[in-house]
Amino acid sequence: MLLGATVVVLDDLSTGSEHNISHWLCNPKFMLIHGDTMLIDPDAVVAKHRPTHVFHLASPASPPHYQRDPVRTLMCNVQGTLNMLTLARSCSARFLLASTSEVYGDPEQHPQLESYNGSVNTFGPRACYDEGKRCAETLVYEHVRLYGMFTSTLRIFNTFGPRMQPDDGRVVSNFIVQAIRGEPLRVYGVGVQTRSFQFVHDLVDAMLIALVFREEPVDGPVNIGCPEERTIDDFASIVKGTLGRPDLGVVHEQAAIDDPQRRRPDITKARQLLGWQPKWSLDDGLAETVDYFLLRNASVKPKE
Amino acid sequence: MLLGATVVVLDDLSTGSEHNISHWLCNPKFMLIHGDTMLIDPDAVVAKHRPTHVFHLASPASPPHYQRDPVRTLMCNVQGTLNMLTLARSCSARFLLASTSEVYGDPEQHPQLESYNGSVNTFGPRACYDEGKRCAETLVYEHVRLYGMFTSTLRIFNTFGPRMQPDDGRVVSNFIVQAIRGEPLRVYGVGVQTRSFQFVHDLVDAMLIALVFREEPVDGPVNIGCPEERTIDDFASIVKGTLGRPDLGVVHEQAAIDDPQRRRPDITKARQLLGWQPKWSLDDGLAETVDYFLLRNASVKPKE
Repeated sequence: MLLGATVVVLDDLSTGSEHNISHWLCNPKFMLIHGDTMLIDPDAVVAKHRPTHVFHLASPASPPHYQRDPVRTLMCNVQGTLNMLTLARSCSARFLLASTSEVYGDPEQHPQLESYNGSVNTFGPRACYDEGKRCAETLVYEHVRLYGMFTSTLRIFNTFGPRMQPDDGRVVSNFIVQAIRGEPLRVYGVGVQTRSFQFVHDLVDAMLIALVFREEPVDGPVNIGCPEERTIDDFASIVKGTLGRPDLGVVHEQAAIDDPQRRRPDITKARQLLGWQPKWSLDDGLAETVDYFLLRNASVKPKE
Repeated sequence: MLLGATVVVLDDLSTGSEHNISHWLCNPKFMLIHGDTMLIDPDAVVAKHRPTHVFHLASPASPPHYQRDPVRTLMCNVQGTLNMLTLARSCSARFLLASTSEVYGDPEQHPQLESYNGSVNTFGPRACYDEGKRCAETLVYEHVRLYGMFTSTLRIFNTFGPRMQPDDGRVVSNFIVQAIRGEPLRVYGVGVQTRSFQFVHDLVDAMLIALVFREEPVDGPVNIGCPEERTIDDFASIVKGTLGRPDLGVVHEQAAIDDPQRRRPDITKARQLLGWQPKWSLDDGLAETVDYFLLRNASVKPKE
């Protein structure tokens, strides 16, 4: 296991899968606690495990998942984050918040700099996630200010890779699953909206640099994502190419409410303060991801 | 008591004063529960009182008060609001959220329309309040969408009137108290930042119209405030005039971080859908407020 560390995972598996970590379960330095950040007793975890680094990623993250129980999504990001901060604080552990490009809402500034305050509609179907994450950031800010905690807040832009759920509901896994099934790719809206896709290995690198390898914490949030922007229509063509299915069509469906039209991180801060930038090309990352989905072909087959 | 209703007040009195409601305490149709929206058992309140209308105003509201315990401020607006929504929902009561112009942060659109998504810095000293209220709005939105509740979300702009605390910390009471003490008026920043001041009676009218008198709920948040904009320097002159102290000086001190530079509501929606607009002039409201502070002169005297 990386760095010789013992890893304790707390997950309610509401949107993940134990299958994704099955290769770790027999390792004596790995433990899975099947539980909920909102309900767990921080003192009990601290007494038993004394963590030195807390990576707080707990939240549903794709719109169909986080809109399934929106009040729970919001509270998980507020109460769950407060609980994990309390846990980290009580044992002087470093704390990483997995924040999101969604704090920028449907941005009016492009590309997005960390100093941009965003444009989130509080009265919309994405707000349960966006506002929950914004509050989580504020809780981190206050824990730094009040208690001098070592924290890192990463605003993570679209990320993909092996072990995504076929029903994740975001565009990368949607397109791959549709293409494997030989279905036309479904685009919501006219397809000119853009996203920037980073491969999961690059994100993990950024997390380790920000929380483990640095001596001093970085002040404020840091964008972590790929600054190469693609339209959704372009991305559909790339996926069809990777899977050798240029014959598949594209169907345009109704755009989702409050769907961001453009999204691309300015990663100057990450470059300067973390010495980080993405290393994986979209093509290479996509090839790995497609291989993963092809290997577990059974679960992406169309229902009979 | 207005409309013959029984009124149950839930207040932790952390920033208010029992003195302000002492004239009601002997009325059999009035009850004060000294408690906390985050801790109270909604079922117990419902079983005992069966409210038909819930006006949710619980939160510290002035920067010195809400920054005293910022994590509590944020949680009070998130968990406290969820508890009060749960309470209202369980007895099919109508629900009013006292939201705030602070959801617009330091606005880049002027005047502010309800459709403007605001500019709040999540990593700043005002975020505990601003983000807490933004999340509270989202909780209301989801309770309307999921459960069809009758709700009203009022984005309340600067309001003043009798019974403000002398140590409230916002500009109206600060200036009046300083002028009564014969001290120079303290302005934070250069004094050209603007505010729009509404008198408390106008706000109460809006609340009753929005929650009690309407047959149908208004969709989405509604700005409630005075569309007349004043610079802080102008307002200092007005206060000095009202108190007959044109001789007093003005001292400019360092501006507060993230202090909004301009703030003025667009109240078209309130005019059209509530038939509401402010009736009180600044002069008349200020005269009433000054009279109140003069009457309780003892508590605003300088400390010896």
